[in-house]
Amino acid sequence: MEQGGRRIPEATVARLPVYLRILYDLAEQRVPTISSERLAELAGVNAAKVRKDLSHLGSYGTRGVGYDVEYLLFEMSRELGLTHDWPVVIVGVGNLGHALANYRGFSDRGFPVAALVDADRSKVGEQVGALTVRHLEDLPAIVAETGAAIGIIATPAAAGQEVADALVAAGVRSILNFAPTVLTVPDDVSVRKVDLAVELQILSFYQQRRTGARRPPDRLGTTR
Amino acid sequence: MEQGGRRIPEATVARLPVYLRILYDLAEQRVPTISSERLAELAGVNAAKVRKDLSHLGSYGTRGVGYDVEYLLFEMSRELGLTHDWPVVIVGVGNLGHALANYRGFSDRGFPVAALVDADRSKVGEQVGALTVRHLEDLPAIVAETGAAIGIIATPAAAGQEVADALVAAGVRSILNFAPTVLTVPDDVSVRKVDLAVELQILSFYQQRRTGARRPPDRLGTTR
Repeated sequence: MEQGGRRIPEATVARLPVYLRILYDLAEQRVPTISSERLAELAGVNAAKVRKDLSHLGSYGTRGVGYDVEYLLFEMSRELGLTHDWPVVIVGVGNLGHALANYRGFSDRGFPVAALVDADRSKVGEQVGALTVRHLEDLPAIVAETGAAIGIIATPAAAGQEVADALVAAGVRSILNFAPTVLTVPDDVSVRKVDLAVELQILSFYQQRRTGARRPPDRLGTTR
Repeated sequence: MEQGGRRIPEATVARLPVYLRILYDLAEQRVPTISSERLAELAGVNAAKVRKDLSHLGSYGTRGVGYDVEYLLFEMSRELGLTHDWPVVIVGVGNLGHALANYRGFSDRGFPVAALVDADRSKVGEQVGALTVRHLEDLPAIVAETGAAIGIIATPAAAGQEVADALVAAGVRSILNFAPTVLTVPDDVSVRKVDLAVELQILSFYQQRRTGARRPPDRLGTTR
């Protein structure tokens, strides 16, 4: 399997973690093989898409048998860069930053939180678990010391771009952005955005249609 | 504008909150109109898609002028059910539950956290901000009292399905699931899933390709 050689479509990349989680579950249950149909069902996509996605990894399965779970898990972990840890630096140690710092799901899956950073000097020195909050201006040193590969921005919207600039200047090339703002970064930097309220808005769309509720527009005109 | 009449594609629904945020920013800056091209640029999609998406809301803009920002904001808020608040109940008051309970982004955007629930009796009675943690078995009473429309599951994976069943039994029809497990729910229940580690895995895919790093597979075989 060659690195960086084949183009894998973005939508496929976004589905790989979904397959990965399913494969881990299957491996834990000692299921030896899985058909594309079953994998598709578990992932909530169609079987043709599964076969296409996996063919990008060079995996074609065996007719009548399906895919070897352990081998597919190995291939996918390698492709996703999960065969070693990627240290993470979290910038912004408010409520969300604290939660992310304490979220075991990150370190369990190979993304240990290596450093916490804030621009607010009153937060510098605060102890959060095993880590001490450091100042934003120390970011280049922190990245050099910890080998942090991924920066998580957990600041308010207004600070997002400044923090992104600081991360990029410190050498970070992967950013997970929780600040509700669009970031401008160089072409060689990857940004993923998480907006928790967007998911609630999508739910409220369906809820609204379901209930047909039409209460007075008491919230219009407010900024959210 | 009629309710529940037109089918709006899921992908369009998922983009509406993105447009909404942009429109709020524009309205704050007192920008009166916006072209589909500019809106597309800000949203990171193409202009034809913007026009198609907005046509589902019955908005067509004016040639050479574009869309009226305030009016589009009004229509979109109404369509997304954001003209009134939707109270939220959070089940699972661990690290993530605490963070979500304290996350101002929810209440600011019309999703006030109305109740906190846990199955662990040692957590019941704990004070988190203005709320007291209550027991999972009180869920029907809590939903009736608060009018909670949306349930947020912030438990470990193993508890996810049980909590989803309890929410559905209590009358909740919209679920935001942070537990890393696939939920089975009746057809009239909407579920959105947020997996924070998935975003990091997608970043690590690109990071891996970028750096070409090939460290030893020290994490293979571990479950994450």
